[in-house]
Amino acid sequence: MLKVGVIGTGMIGQDHIRRMTTVLAGVQVTAVSDVDTVVAASVGAGVGASVHATGGEVIADPSVDAVVVCSWGPTHEEYVLAAIAAGKPVFCEKPLATTQEACLRILDAEVAAGRRLVQVGYMRRYDAEYRALKSSLGVIGRPLMMHCAHRNASVPSFYEKEMAITDTAVHEIDMVRWLFDDEVAAVRVLVPRRSGNGGELQDPLFVVMEMAGGVLVDVEISVNIRYGYDIRGEVVGENGTAALGNASLVTIRHGGVEASPVPVDWRERFLRAYDVEFQEWIDSLTAGGRPVGPSAWDGYAAAVVSDAGVAALRTGDRVPVSLVERPKLYGAEVAAA
Amino acid sequence: MLKVGVIGTGMIGQDHIRRMTTVLAGVQVTAVSDVDTVVAASVGAGVGASVHATGGEVIADPSVDAVVVCSWGPTHEEYVLAAIAAGKPVFCEKPLATTQEACLRILDAEVAAGRRLVQVGYMRRYDAEYRALKSSLGVIGRPLMMHCAHRNASVPSFYEKEMAITDTAVHEIDMVRWLFDDEVAAVRVLVPRRSGNGGELQDPLFVVMEMAGGVLVDVEISVNIRYGYDIRGEVVGENGTAALGNASLVTIRHGGVEASPVPVDWRERFLRAYDVEFQEWIDSLTAGGRPVGPSAWDGYAAAVVSDAGVAALRTGDRVPVSLVERPKLYGAEVAAA
Amino acid sequence: MLKVGVIGTGMIGQDHIRRMTTVLAGVQVTAVSDVDTVVAASVGAGVGASVHATGGEVIADPSVDAVVVCSWGPTHEEYVLAAIAAGKPVFCEKPLATTQEACLRILDAEVAAGRRLVQVGYMRRYDAEYRALKSSLGVIGRPLMMHCAHRNASVPSFYEKEMAITDTAVHEIDMVRWLFDDEVAAVRVLVPRRSGNGGELQDPLFVVMEMAGGVLVDVEISVNIRYGYDIRGEVVGENGTAALGNASLVTIRHGGVEASPVPVDWRERFLRAYDVEFQEWIDSLTAGGRPVGPSAWDGYAAAVVSDAGVAALRTGDRVPVSLVERPKLYGAEVAAA
Amino acid sequence: MLKVGVIGTGMIGQDHIRRMTTVLAGVQVTAVSDVDTVVAASVGAGVGASVHATGGEVIADPSVDAVVVCSWGPTHEEYVLAAIAAGKPVFCEKPLATTQEACLRILDAEVAAGRRLVQVGYMRRYDAEYRALKSSLGVIGRPLMMHCAHRNASVPSFYEKEMAITDTAVHEIDMVRWLFDDEVAAVRVLVPRRSGNGGELQDPLFVVMEMAGGVLVDVEISVNIRYGYDIRGEVVGENGTAALGNASLVTIRHGGVEASPVPVDWRERFLRAYDVEFQEWIDSLTAGGRPVGPSAWDGYAAAVVSDAGVAALRTGDRVPVSLVERPKLYGAEVAAA
Repeated sequence: MLKVGVIGTGMIGQDHIRRMTTVLAGVQVTAVSDVDTVVAASVGAGVGASVHATGGEVIADPSVDAVVVCSWGPTHEEYVLAAIAAGKPVFCEKPLATTQEACLRILDAEVAAGRRLVQVGYMRRYDAEYRALKSSLGVIGRPLMMHCAHRNASVPSFYEKEMAITDTAVHEIDMVRWLFDDEVAAVRVLVPRRSGNGGELQDPLFVVMEMAGGVLVDVEISVNIRYGYDIRGEVVGENGTAALGNASLVTIRHGGVEASPVPVDWRERFLRAYDVEFQEWIDSLTAGGRPVGPSAWDGYAAAVVSDAGVAALRTGDRVPVSLVERPKLYGAEVAAA
Repeated sequence: MLKVGVIGTGMIGQDHIRRMTTVLAGVQVTAVSDVDTVVAASVGAGVGASVHATGGEVIADPSVDAVVVCSWGPTHEEYVLAAIAAGKPVFCEKPLATTQEACLRILDAEVAAGRRLVQVGYMRRYDAEYRALKSSLGVIGRPLMMHCAHRNASVPSFYEKEMAITDTAVHEIDMVRWLFDDEVAAVRVLVPRRSGNGGELQDPLFVVMEMAGGVLVDVEISVNIRYGYDIRGEVVGENGTAALGNASLVTIRHGGVEASPVPVDWRERFLRAYDVEFQEWIDSLTAGGRPVGPSAWDGYAAAVVSDAGVAALRTGDRVPVSLVERPKLYGAEVAAA
Repeated sequence: MLKVGVIGTGMIGQDHIRRMTTVLAGVQVTAVSDVDTVVAASVGAGVGASVHATGGEVIADPSVDAVVVCSWGPTHEEYVLAAIAAGKPVFCEKPLATTQEACLRILDAEVAAGRRLVQVGYMRRYDAEYRALKSSLGVIGRPLMMHCAHRNASVPSFYEKEMAITDTAVHEIDMVRWLFDDEVAAVRVLVPRRSGNGGELQDPLFVVMEMAGGVLVDVEISVNIRYGYDIRGEVVGENGTAALGNASLVTIRHGGVEASPVPVDWRERFLRAYDVEFQEWIDSLTAGGRPVGPSAWDGYAAAVVSDAGVAALRTGDRVPVSLVERPKLYGAEVAAA
Repeated sequence: MLKVGVIGTGMIGQDHIRRMTTVLAGVQVTAVSDVDTVVAASVGAGVGASVHATGGEVIADPSVDAVVVCSWGPTHEEYVLAAIAAGKPVFCEKPLATTQEACLRILDAEVAAGRRLVQVGYMRRYDAEYRALKSSLGVIGRPLMMHCAHRNASVPSFYEKEMAITDTAVHEIDMVRWLFDDEVAAVRVLVPRRSGNGGELQDPLFVVMEMAGGVLVDVEISVNIRYGYDIRGEVVGENGTAALGNASLVTIRHGGVEASPVPVDWRERFLRAYDVEFQEWIDSLTAGGRPVGPSAWDGYAAAVVSDAGVAALRTGDRVPVSLVERPKLYGAEVAAA
């Protein structure tokens, strides 16, 4: 039974606590903390966990085997570094940290520790459709292009222009690195006619990424498209294409059409991916191993590509991506999930 | 943490133990037994459960809150009755018992006990596609017909003619009772040209069921169709139709076709349904409630309809289904899952 | 340029005249007649055709190479026999005649004439999807079953109970004879719960046909299903299945669903099949050959099976189909289209 | 009966002659010519047409009402200008002419003639799927983006780099102008990793067009993708998307997959579009009207955009498109088809 401490008991923290308490096997939430101590106390009491004043205390708690960081982004670096210092595995929700430099400090600390402790919460690698897509690549010849769409029915009022890159496209950034076992080499952002649904927001956007090996990836980002949450991806190979399935649960013929429902939001679409992500993390730790999901290197690379994407959006230019040399700790591959 | 004792540690028993140990939350396997005591000892040791000489001892074990019966069909009656006598909830793999009369004895015992303790392992009610289908029925007007197909790539050599009804079609028998909240009133079995893939076996069959309310259900049973495991269902309503979705994970264009994989077998197709079935059973008991899945009544009704199906197959006639009056314990509805 | 005389200038006659005048190559409408002489005069004038007082005069007109019969069903026998007597090819809209006996008289006359002159208007054999289905049968092993649905959004007020067989299912009757190169051996009609959309009409029906070779065909007939006109068919073979495609022109994602339009009516669904049917008939005659589409034998067999279907609907019984011996003129095969 | 003279009796000329002779109504091929006089003589004899030594003679032939130009591209200008001079409607296969300047000379001549005589052979506007797509645009809100793919299984050995723009993407260039009733304002060409199937050819390419109104169109050009000929298009609107259908004729379940065939080549995919294109051209002329399909303006605009695309491919830059002012003859709209 893995004992987990959760730092941050806001919406996503509560969701992961629910997951670890009522959905998954082999895990127990033993400690929590939050800047909102009232919420922390309530959530902790609900699952019988100790409630600490700070994230640091959660990490130090001897009843905590591993740490989950769900706090505000700017605090991630501090908690991840503290967990590494304590020698405890830490699952950090995206982003790993809010700057490239902070990500590099985490890389350095983990490399100094000499073993992988950090996993970053990129859950698409655990989605059954993406996994089937990855395992189908061998059939279609060498991959040459990928077409993606990332569509939200709507976004909250605090959603700002650059979040289309840093919060939305970042999922595709991590996904293509994993899918092709390759790094992103350059980013362009093209700007179509603006949707009236997003007010002043520049929506949609069209992000084009060049992988180091030459695969060209295009991503439509539409975050106010009303009809639903729709994630699409098609890899174009030399001899064929492979695309995410169309996993509708039901087909209804009514009123002149044959129709299948589209997911309402990301919770519906990726619910199972989150479960699998956590179960595999728990199982890898329980088995005594290192985490095998998205690494600190993946978190760092996503941050650098995301920064390039923001620069590309601002300037209209093609922006090259420059990464530091990959430490041996992170192997030859991008990640092993 | 619900403490469960498992009677029968064969293939399906081991699978449920794996599920309760490594997949689901809030459950612990505390005791096991099997006629093969070597297997029982090995399986029990693997999960730290007590190993008992008999199923009766498992039921009597004070560390057992609830019982799962996965033993050989002819033993189900004895263990279910013993669990009822002990006042312990019991999940019994299908069939509830091997004869209508045995099912009735279980009904009587549970009614005498005055509360629901028994749940039968019909897992389709927990499948996401079937649930979406059921929740879509309101859109298409009153249901009038349903077309089903139940296709296996192949069946083992011990599979005999009547198992097409008792082992295969029985899933559709339970499913339509649940889907339409109605009983089956009569059964016919029509016999098409025989597949050469099944040797002497009469395969495929075409089962036609009349629901008490008039809905006509047809079921193609093809158990040697080679191409995969395929479960299909379309409800025809007054104003439209609703069908099970087409949950392919990936679409591949290659070699002149656009193609999606079909599941290999029932394990792949219904893996999640088994997980959900058990999680909901565990959650209902942990919450202190009665089991709300398929009841002893459902197990009894399935047995009666299955017997009618076998008679229909033997005679070629339309065979009416005759049920005893439903005890109040089982409510007005067929089942509440 | 084939010169065609059209008997009957009602709705379907006008449609075929339009087709031969403005859509197809190598054909000219040179003569017309109708019981409604005013309509005949107007239609004839519109395309520069002679207008005759009777169908007999159309057939006798030396400017007529071939005859199209679109008049009221009970008159078909007379005109087809007259065309045979005149040695002129005749395309007769379904039914060939209104009774089996009348069909037999036509068979006898054509056999006496010693060559094929008659073609019957079963247009599904010319539909691209049905043709692709037939050419795919080799892939799936010997056919064992077929599931069909024939759905109309609504039917006119004069539509009566038995027309579900004689006007609607008759298309499937001809289609399965052609698809499997086999005769129907017996018919059953099962009666589901009645739709409220059809008033007193018994709708839907479930027609089950046994082919002589053992293939079992089921056909859902739903003629008031509101949502559109939908024709479906799936052949179950030993190793796989082949189904009519899903020829939607457009896929729209909007309002929470992904949707494709369903045809409104048979005109939309089979428009091209009618064109191809006529073009191939014209081409076969222009090339100096015999008609190769549905023959008088096909018209006769459809009539006999249809009668069996009506009897099955009235009695609830399985009704065997009994055909006369097939004359050599009609070859070993059912038809050559 | 429209009398047509065909200049150029090579592969495409012969195909259009076959079409006008054996498929379509209301048309007769009365004269032909070709630089290969042997072929011209043979083709002409086959359909009973006069055979002329030059295209000029075809145009001058009093038995010719309208002209179809299927000769080598560099000769198009001469024949189109001659037809205009003769006051005869002329259908010119793409391209209208091989340079922008030549297209402008044709524009000038037609404007001087004061009425539309020229139609250019862009057949996608006549494809049922594209037409359904255009008529669906009203449902999804203002269009913002469009994703296209143009995939050939293979191309002949004489296919050179720039033909990916001038011969392949040119179809999308015309199509988007028609679909959105708007001009292309700028073109980019991005270069992915090269397929090994195309030898030295740069394949695939990714063409990005900005419409004057801001719609961003991306087009994958893959001309050696082996698996088939696949044309895809999805318009992204403010509130939803509309995509070309997936009009497979048959669905086969076999060998572990559910599969639908993909067209082999453009002939199979657009066969009907060519028929409809010609029938509508014939009908418009027979009715005494002007041609309403793609105009000389459309031919000119396609040439300018295509030139910009070639420049973009050579330079890697975003290349603006600069058109002359549209003459009133060509109305406010792009085209009326």
